[in-house]
Amino acid sequence: MGTLVYVIPLFGVLGILYTVWKTSWVNHKDPGTDKMKKISGYIAEGAMAFLRAEYKVLAIFVVSVALLLAFAADSKDSSPVIAVSFLVGAFCSALAGFIGMRVATKANVRTTNAARSSLAKALEIAFAGGSVMGMGVVGLGVLGLSVLFIIYSNVFGVSNIADLNRVITIITGFSFGASSIALFARVGGGIYTKAADVGADLVGKIEAGIPEDHHLNPATIADNVGDNVGDVAGMGADLFESYVGSIVGTMVLGTAFFGLPEFADKSNGLAAVILPLMIAGVGIVMSFLGTFFVRVKEGGDPQKALNMGEFGSSFLMVIAIYFIIDYMMPSKWVFADPLYGETYTITSLGIFFATVIGLATGILIGIVTEYFTGTGRRPVLGIVHQSITGSATNIIAGLSTGMMSTAIPIVILASAILGSFALGGMYGIAIAAVGMLSNTGIQLAVDAYGPISDNAGGIAEMSELPKEVRKRTDKLDAVGNTTAAIGKGFAIGSAALTALALFGAFMTAAHIRSIDVSKAKVMAGLLFGAMLPYLFSALAMSAVGKAAMAMIEEVRRQFKSIPALSAALKVMKKNQDKDQSEWSEEDKIIFENADGSAEYGKCVDISTKAAIRKMVIPGLLAVFTPVIFGLVGDAEMLGGLLAGVTASGVLMAIFQANAGGAWDNAKKMIEGGVEIEGKMYGKGSNPHKAAVVGDTVGDPFKDTSGPSLNILIKLMAVVSLVIAPLIK
Amino acid sequence: MGTLVYVIPLFGVLGILYTVWKTSWVNHKDPGTDKMKKISGYIAEGAMAFLRAEYKVLAIFVVSVALLLAFAADSKDSSPVIAVSFLVGAFCSALAGFIGMRVATKANVRTTNAARSSLAKALEIAFAGGSVMGMGVVGLGVLGLSVLFIIYSNVFGVSNIADLNRVITIITGFSFGASSIALFARVGGGIYTKAADVGADLVGKIEAGIPEDHHLNPATIADNVGDNVGDVAGMGADLFESYVGSIVGTMVLGTAFFGLPEFADKSNGLAAVILPLMIAGVGIVMSFLGTFFVRVKEGGDPQKALNMGEFGSSFLMVIAIYFIIDYMMPSKWVFADPLYGETYTITSLGIFFATVIGLATGILIGIVTEYFTGTGRRPVLGIVHQSITGSATNIIAGLSTGMMSTAIPIVILASAILGSFALGGMYGIAIAAVGMLSNTGIQLAVDAYGPISDNAGGIAEMSELPKEVRKRTDKLDAVGNTTAAIGKGFAIGSAALTALALFGAFMTAAHIRSIDVSKAKVMAGLLFGAMLPYLFSALAMSAVGKAAMAMIEEVRRQFKSIPALSAALKVMKKNQDKDQSEWSEEDKIIFENADGSAEYGKCVDISTKAAIRKMVIPGLLAVFTPVIFGLVGDAEMLGGLLAGVTASGVLMAIFQANAGGAWDNAKKMIEGGVEIEGKMYGKGSNPHKAAVVGDTVGDPFKDTSGPSLNILIKLMAVVSLVIAPLIK
Repeated sequence: MGTLVYVIPLFGVLGILYTVWKTSWVNHKDPGTDKMKKISGYIAEGAMAFLRAEYKVLAIFVVSVALLLAFAADSKDSSPVIAVSFLVGAFCSALAGFIGMRVATKANVRTTNAARSSLAKALEIAFAGGSVMGMGVVGLGVLGLSVLFIIYSNVFGVSNIADLNRVITIITGFSFGASSIALFARVGGGIYTKAADVGADLVGKIEAGIPEDHHLNPATIADNVGDNVGDVAGMGADLFESYVGSIVGTMVLGTAFFGLPEFADKSNGLAAVILPLMIAGVGIVMSFLGTFFVRVKEGGDPQKALNMGEFGSSFLMVIAIYFIIDYMMPSKWVFADPLYGETYTITSLGIFFATVIGLATGILIGIVTEYFTGTGRRPVLGIVHQSITGSATNIIAGLSTGMMSTAIPIVILASAILGSFALGGMYGIAIAAVGMLSNTGIQLAVDAYGPISDNAGGIAEMSELPKEVRKRTDKLDAVGNTTAAIGKGFAIGSAALTALALFGAFMTAAHIRSIDVSKAKVMAGLLFGAMLPYLFSALAMSAVGKAAMAMIEEVRRQFKSIPALSAALKVMKKNQDKDQSEWSEEDKIIFENADGSAEYGKCVDISTKAAIRKMVIPGLLAVFTPVIFGLVGDAEMLGGLLAGVTASGVLMAIFQANAGGAWDNAKKMIEGGVEIEGKMYGKGSNPHKAAVVGDTVGDPFKDTSGPSLNILIKLMAVVSLVIAPLIK
Repeated sequence: MGTLVYVIPLFGVLGILYTVWKTSWVNHKDPGTDKMKKISGYIAEGAMAFLRAEYKVLAIFVVSVALLLAFAADSKDSSPVIAVSFLVGAFCSALAGFIGMRVATKANVRTTNAARSSLAKALEIAFAGGSVMGMGVVGLGVLGLSVLFIIYSNVFGVSNIADLNRVITIITGFSFGASSIALFARVGGGIYTKAADVGADLVGKIEAGIPEDHHLNPATIADNVGDNVGDVAGMGADLFESYVGSIVGTMVLGTAFFGLPEFADKSNGLAAVILPLMIAGVGIVMSFLGTFFVRVKEGGDPQKALNMGEFGSSFLMVIAIYFIIDYMMPSKWVFADPLYGETYTITSLGIFFATVIGLATGILIGIVTEYFTGTGRRPVLGIVHQSITGSATNIIAGLSTGMMSTAIPIVILASAILGSFALGGMYGIAIAAVGMLSNTGIQLAVDAYGPISDNAGGIAEMSELPKEVRKRTDKLDAVGNTTAAIGKGFAIGSAALTALALFGAFMTAAHIRSIDVSKAKVMAGLLFGAMLPYLFSALAMSAVGKAAMAMIEEVRRQFKSIPALSAALKVMKKNQDKDQSEWSEEDKIIFENADGSAEYGKCVDISTKAAIRKMVIPGLLAVFTPVIFGLVGDAEMLGGLLAGVTASGVLMAIFQANAGGAWDNAKKMIEGGVEIEGKMYGKGSNPHKAAVVGDTVGDPFKDTSGPSLNILIKLMAVVSLVIAPLIK
């Protein structure tokens, strides 16, 4: 196996050491006033309560599936040890989510406090919080996978193809574990955050007329908890599984080159299997270096700092990948592909270019995303314009923008598939996904930085800090938008390519040579697969809708039945045009008396219970559908199912994410004041009301169902891969 | 070829004689008062003006494509004569639309007039109008196809497989012609009707507060014209192409049995080719008989009458199909399928059951549609309930209902595919589609009856007839809902099965044996194909949105700048709580003076121009995408494209149709008054306003983009079939 592979866990350890160091650094920062501490305490408590409740349910699921895996593994191709991989994968995923969310709930209030004095310091803390999530994910991913691979290789041996196949098959359990946790975390977190958000907005902002994040809104803590459990922990688990899935898919496909003469002196024939792990490992170093680029002087541009971190580390990554591939892989080899019965020549340079295609695909899709959802761009301006005639035209415009935005990304993806396949066959597609995800560490840091800044703003508002603090955090929050769009590009692009890599891996494992959609059973599978994202989205959206209604009713109840609260609301309404300093003394006293009278805990409870209850069915659906199709039907029908869910899922994901993003920014544009046909419109105008409707519809689209679909397609592919040896 | 085939054109002639007879019958009915004649004159004029403008553009398209077809046909497998079939197909489709719309614009006012005295008489006229459309479509379809087949057979011969293939290939041009016209008609008509509808609703009902179909609303004529061009002519062209497509697809697949010993004495080996024509021909007779079942006594239930017509003729059809198949086909034959390399035995009984599966599939999908969109059913009640918290939750509920509603129809469809394939291979799937469409004549009659009744109601309103007239027409309109839901089930189910039949036909024609989605190029095609319904819907919806805005601006302009109109609006607002008889004399005079001052023509113009301009790009996209994929890529990549567009298109079509239908009925339920949590809500309440937003969003979903997708998938399949001989 060579000694090279023993280096890889060290990269993982580096990532984990970073998280320990940065977590302690964040913890030592000043959390601010007592009020800030109290509020952030509520948020942290709510977030941890959710995680506890979620992990309790997941523990049952994970143990049951592990037992099933152990007992089902009776054929010669499968081994009960896969259950161990599954448990470790699930544990690493859960741990990554826990670490990231814990630091996020510390970093938020410290960012607020730093923002009281300086934008630069606030950025530093928010980004540090995000980077803990990012480095934790990649560190645990690389460490977990490489250690398992080393152990299994030594226990079962990898000196012949049968042994190697056994080891790799067992490894796939890790990816399955990560994917299951990811799906539940994304769906549960997504329902949580949007139920709270929609509920808080509709009854607080619109009915009672109090500002977002106001401490008198009982749902506001739940809303801020939601940012952590949905956008931080959910996203972390999401990228963890993409990351792991792309590596595992490539490892499976890499076994095809084992035994080729050109590979004889390349890590004992395992170069293609180890390559994705090595790229990921070195990616940790590059992400680590990238974090040092993110610096901004007082008065400097935070956007530039983030860009420097992301593009700087991507650039370093490309150079590093070139040398890794050049060192590890043979310069040229001839491959008789058993899948297609064709023979072609692959070069190490071709494999390198496939990774570059992967990275470029992520960035290009990100740019398109930015165009269709960015403030001031034509599509969003169109939605703003159509808000003049009311919510109906706003909704139609948003839906059509979201649908329209699918076209170019699909062309990019299709080209990437064709290009990377031409360069390296199915392995080329898989390694492109690895290339795309090689800088996940820094990418996720930037992604998680967003909700931390958002939370920081919420805390500033609830703690009634001076307005300039909120302005600074808003600036931080706004800055992340472009980078977040790029992040979405990576999430969608990597999901598609990873799913394809796993698809190829599944075919290899199931020993089938084609998935012919002209066969009736494959077509039936394809149709059913294409339907799943619809069913899945419907379940997620109706869960959000129903939980939001429960939230609204609870908030209304509190507004009505808690005397201090209703008195304070009346005072606010009476004085709505005045600054608080101009209020009468009596009003001020009534208002202050209400402090702490909102029962946040009840709203937190509603979100938690709804999320936990409603995440179960979508999750089970995703896990068991491929099992049923594979065992009742056959491998080819299951292949049709996967093709259907991938094509339909990628489209629905892009559509929903971009429609939601565009609605969101259309609302923000109007809030900032826009001139249309000579008239000015701003907050509270009719177009603004229409835009708020669009934004609310977009919420579950972009933060609940949309991102879950990325996981759905990968999870179904990895389940198929895991059960492949059991299919006749 | 046998003599049997010469009988078939006679069935077509029967259909056409029926239309001539019924048209003249409708024309001889009394069109009512002068005001009614004037208003219906406006509608007829607007509808014809649109058709003229549309056909002018289509003529250019049709001639260009015919020339392309003639010149491209240089290989030995194709013949320039295909251009003739294409022209005839396009002409028949356009003619069917023209006949149907012409009678619809006569029947509407006569239905109104009949409704002044009796519900039964009104039903008779409305249904007669619809039946002209239905019988015209099936008559022209069967006549056109069978005559072309007879001519080509005699000219080119069908005594060996090469000659037969040439004849059948040429015939496919007919289906191509029908499909192109259908797509343009559906998209154009859909944009027209919804731009007018949305525009009229938003500015008339909501801003100015005048009732739907009020004669002072300048967009009201355009709205009523829209019902004719969209729901009558558009739907007619749609079903014409489904009908023709399923027959042609089956004819192509039927050639595979030519030369089998079991077929030697069965229509000279052509039994399987002629069978779909024969079933369609006998279907005309059954539909003809079915029209006589639609009778209602005064005070009787019109719903029962329509059900009798539809289910009665379906029942007769099943019996007839049994005897046709038993007579024409061998009782059993062994078939070595060249597509799959498998040999299986097919029985005539199996083929019969495949047609029954087809019919059952249409009915079952219709029942599910009715459940998800029906007034008083759980899903619609859910939307009503979620309207309490505003438009955002109403929209979320509608979207998730639409998505949820895809699940069962897909299970039904997938089962139908598996079942009919098991019974008769690809030919089994194709003949199932023919079975489903065998009673198109009566089905379409019932479908077209809806918009005629709707129009009759509009005319009653605009002519200021007594309220009970409108009540009767509303009753007629409401009755059609269940049958219309069944109709949608047939449209979607038949589109999917027909597309698959054409898909199989395409594979036969292109000489490919598999479409393997695990190949990169096929996967790229699949993704691109799955994207097209999104792009297509986006184009259609944004066209509606923009045209509606132009309409709104025009109506606002008229309300402001036409003095008589603005004076009358003020009077209406002032007296909104009073009956017109209680108004002051002065007010009555002002109101009457405004009569005729709305400039309907300008609104008609806006809709016409928008529809014609915006239908071009989606149409060309649908026609040329398969050409590019086939000629630049290859047949298998094109197969991937077709699989993608079929799976994704069917889902989007179901989603959009049902979301739209559910929103519509949620609004209607609230308008009828509903009690939620002890409170009553009705017209003008906040939940009603929220429901109007949902209904408006649903309009382009259910009447523009949704139904166009059914055509898109068939058109792309038929284009592929036509160009198959040209692909390397």
